[in-house]
Amino acid sequence: MRIGIFDSGIGGLTVHRELRAALPGHDLVYLGDTARVPYGTRSPETVKRYSFAVASHLAEAGAEAVVIACNTATTYALEDLAEAGARAGIQVFGVVEPGVRAALAAHHDGAIAVLGTEGTIRGGAYQRALTRTIPEDQIRGVPCPLFVPLAEEGWVDGDVPLAVAERYLGGLRGQIDTAILGCTHYPLLKPVLAEILPGVTLVDSAESTAQAVLAALGPGDGDGSESFVVTDHVDRFTSVGEQFLGRRPQSVSWVDVGPPRGVFSLP
Amino acid sequence: MRIGIFDSGIGGLTVHRELRAALPGHDLVYLGDTARVPYGTRSPETVKRYSFAVASHLAEAGAEAVVIACNTATTYALEDLAEAGARAGIQVFGVVEPGVRAALAAHHDGAIAVLGTEGTIRGGAYQRALTRTIPEDQIRGVPCPLFVPLAEEGWVDGDVPLAVAERYLGGLRGQIDTAILGCTHYPLLKPVLAEILPGVTLVDSAESTAQAVLAALGPGDGDGSESFVVTDHVDRFTSVGEQFLGRRPQSVSWVDVGPPRGVFSLP
Repeated sequence: MRIGIFDSGIGGLTVHRELRAALPGHDLVYLGDTARVPYGTRSPETVKRYSFAVASHLAEAGAEAVVIACNTATTYALEDLAEAGARAGIQVFGVVEPGVRAALAAHHDGAIAVLGTEGTIRGGAYQRALTRTIPEDQIRGVPCPLFVPLAEEGWVDGDVPLAVAERYLGGLRGQIDTAILGCTHYPLLKPVLAEILPGVTLVDSAESTAQAVLAALGPGDGDGSESFVVTDHVDRFTSVGEQFLGRRPQSVSWVDVGPPRGVFSLP
Repeated sequence: MRIGIFDSGIGGLTVHRELRAALPGHDLVYLGDTARVPYGTRSPETVKRYSFAVASHLAEAGAEAVVIACNTATTYALEDLAEAGARAGIQVFGVVEPGVRAALAAHHDGAIAVLGTEGTIRGGAYQRALTRTIPEDQIRGVPCPLFVPLAEEGWVDGDVPLAVAERYLGGLRGQIDTAILGCTHYPLLKPVLAEILPGVTLVDSAESTAQAVLAALGPGDGDGSESFVVTDHVDRFTSVGEQFLGRRPQSVSWVDVGPPRGVFSLP
């Protein structure tokens, strides 16, 4: 099966990496909307329009399932994309529900923190999903916008990320027992987060999502080919992407995604 | 006269602020392309296309002069925009040349540092302009991508911006006597930069640009009305913009800029 994966840019490569490991026999097409990154500070309407546009491109590229490897896009577009996809037999997965399930399984008596971009926290998808099981006063939504540029700079250890993480999260020590890394960039900062939040379980949505997709689609029995397309320059994606994917992305090409259309016309 | 000002987002408000002070009698229309911010990491072709699109909107809104209040857009689009504008009698100003002239006037025997986004430093417009007067080994181009999210977070003092600035710039102490703030966000970090680079003259391109526009157009003799348009949500622009403008921006509305057209069709 061909699985389309999309993100606003590079961060979703952490999801691609986990999907590749869990589903070795499916073909993966990754689309990074690098011309319009970041989605995290944009309005819900804009994020939805962009998400439908990139999903349209993936459908035309033959994707039979789509993984939204972006927390902001999952927050604002999953429901409508899943509804549109269902009519054409295309299953659509997001990163929020799998992370929520893993966090609820890990959590004991402390609160659960959701760390994410401004858009993800303001959108509240994680918080709403958690309140189906735990009370609101056990949930802390924390926007951490500097984590994305830190990860993209490769500043994932040393004094700067520690100072930033302390400022965002130091006040949570003793209050929480679980933290959801609600942005695909954040797994790169796991060692720093573990130092600032000792004893706290860090839930990586990328891993949880790959397990959810594996449960639905199986590991596949093909060759497991892969390709990457981006909407802005290829060079930066290839160089910065290496630390997210764990290896240099191969077969990267540029694409103009065009407007939402076909299966994924805007509702 | 009506003067159009544009930036990829919010940072250009530091230029608007200086223009308002220097040219009280001109009408100002500010366009922040917040749906497509940041320009700093995008390719030259993409930045040029976006710049022509927003300039087209400003021309249709009656702008008789255009100030590119964005270093990346100045780097990649000023030359072509100025050529297109000249055919219709619209003068186009950028932020690079005024900053360069101010830096050359301030500099003595040390090197000049250019601080900017990845796009501005890679584009090399400041460096090329400086090499017309001083040798290349007296110029240091330093990309400082974390300064933009720091300014937008309002983290402009304390340990985090100091640690970031030290990591980018600590190695320059003793080597440089002048630093150009080659990004419209950076004036907010002046106190931090002054602490990390004691004795170094900090050249604010926003101030220098306003003086260059004043010299060309005069202070104006009208009421000095102003309006702001953005391509993504108005609320964030208004709240985050306050610290850049020094007051809350009034009359902010949303606009879809459309493609490059008319006077500013793509060359």
